Amino acid sequence: MAVNDEAPLEITAFKWVPDFAQGFVRDLRPRWACEEIGLDYSERLLDLERPDSYFAEQPWGQIPVINDGGIQIFESGAILLHIAEQDERLMSSDPQKRAQTISWLFAAYNSVEPLFFELGNIEIFSAGEKWAELRKPGLMEFLGQRLDRLNDALGDKDYLVGDFSVADIAMATVLREAGETDAVSARPKLAAYLERCISRPAFERALAAQLAVFKEHEPVAA
Amino acid sequence: MAVNDEAPLEITAFKWVPDFAQGFVRDLRPRWACEEIGLDYSERLLDLERPDSYFAEQPWGQIPVINDGGIQIFESGAILLHIAEQDERLMSSDPQKRAQTISWLFAAYNSVEPLFFELGNIEIFSAGEKWAELRKPGLMEFLGQRLDRLNDALGDKDYLVGDFSVADIAMATVLREAGETDAVSARPKLAAYLERCISRPAFERALAAQLAVFKEHEPVAA
Repeated sequence: MAVNDEAPLEITAFKWVPDFAQGFVRDLRPRWACEEIGLDYSERLLDLERPDSYFAEQPWGQIPVINDGGIQIFESGAILLHIAEQDERLMSSDPQKRAQTISWLFAAYNSVEPLFFELGNIEIFSAGEKWAELRKPGLMEFLGQRLDRLNDALGDKDYLVGDFSVADIAMATVLREAGETDAVSARPKLAAYLERCISRPAFERALAAQLAVFKEHEPVAA
Repeated sequence: MAVNDEAPLEITAFKWVPDFAQGFVRDLRPRWACEEIGLDYSERLLDLERPDSYFAEQPWGQIPVINDGGIQIFESGAILLHIAEQDERLMSSDPQKRAQTISWLFAAYNSVEPLFFELGNIEIFSAGEKWAELRKPGLMEFLGQRLDRLNDALGDKDYLVGDFSVADIAMATVLREAGETDAVSARPKLAAYLERCISRPAFERALAAQLAVFKEHEPVAA
């Protein structure tokens, strides 16, 4: 178990979120990275209504922020990179492999996730709005083309850079945002890649750790 | 002049792009970083119709890719980080400043640029479509809220991490994508920040270098 109240690495997380967000809040990402290398971390739990002071730590008020022995970091990508720099199992020190790992880390967050942000908006936050209905076919086509390219880049490799790396934590947690759509499932190689990533025991432990917090803080029905 | 055919750092760029994209193609970002530290780079110029082989270097076929003495890197963020790791003027080696610089680098690409991708789609690529018209007010509101937070985070600092850093190259090139909208201009402190960044002689040299290539390869009217 990597959750340890005494650990110098602290990760912020929510006490509780509604069902649709459970298992998807982004503290899952650093939890997973820690689990892969057996690095203990402590949790700092926040209410959904964050205090104003939290915005000084995270400009958008989002989860997670980490504090690692006094060093404060925000944004999933920056946090994952910080953890990965400590262990070859998350990022090889071979210069070309390291460069490719960081390239794919940014690719997940700048070239793939933005399309899933739009998809999440259409499917959840703006569901039922006219623009969302009209936009969906074009977005799914563009997303599909991008995932075809990702599929090509993956080729016959098990993971993006060959061996498992922090880039796969980033990409897999992004691909999970496909939700009920067939964006990933219609591409068997990509679906197998995602399954390969989230079948890792470290992912399962990270997910269980996030869900355990929600269970503990579940609101009591009025 | 940082463009030097013999330089070991090679940046891909387009020979020519249509007017609306001139000055905005992303090779501007590493060009700017190089100019800030006087690092020479060579150009590898591509036609708009990229050869299939380019997708093996850059999964989405985008500009830029860099090759630095044999190390190949894609995605603007990864490329900027690679260049920044070589010089304190782009990223302080102080651990907290370094962490904040990398946090802001990812913030530009994962928390701000995705909204400008949507804006660019609405304003340019899908201009005139019904969904774009219906989506615009909500997007502008959400983008405005995010830029208000960015404004708050900037506070009275000249640059995101105090002194100029690679994070400002990322954020300023993203904010320039506001185009004709008032997303940035309606926020005086943010507008002043953007102006401060793009008034730097290194930015001006980088922009001139990109535009010079287009000028040289301008198609002859039929």
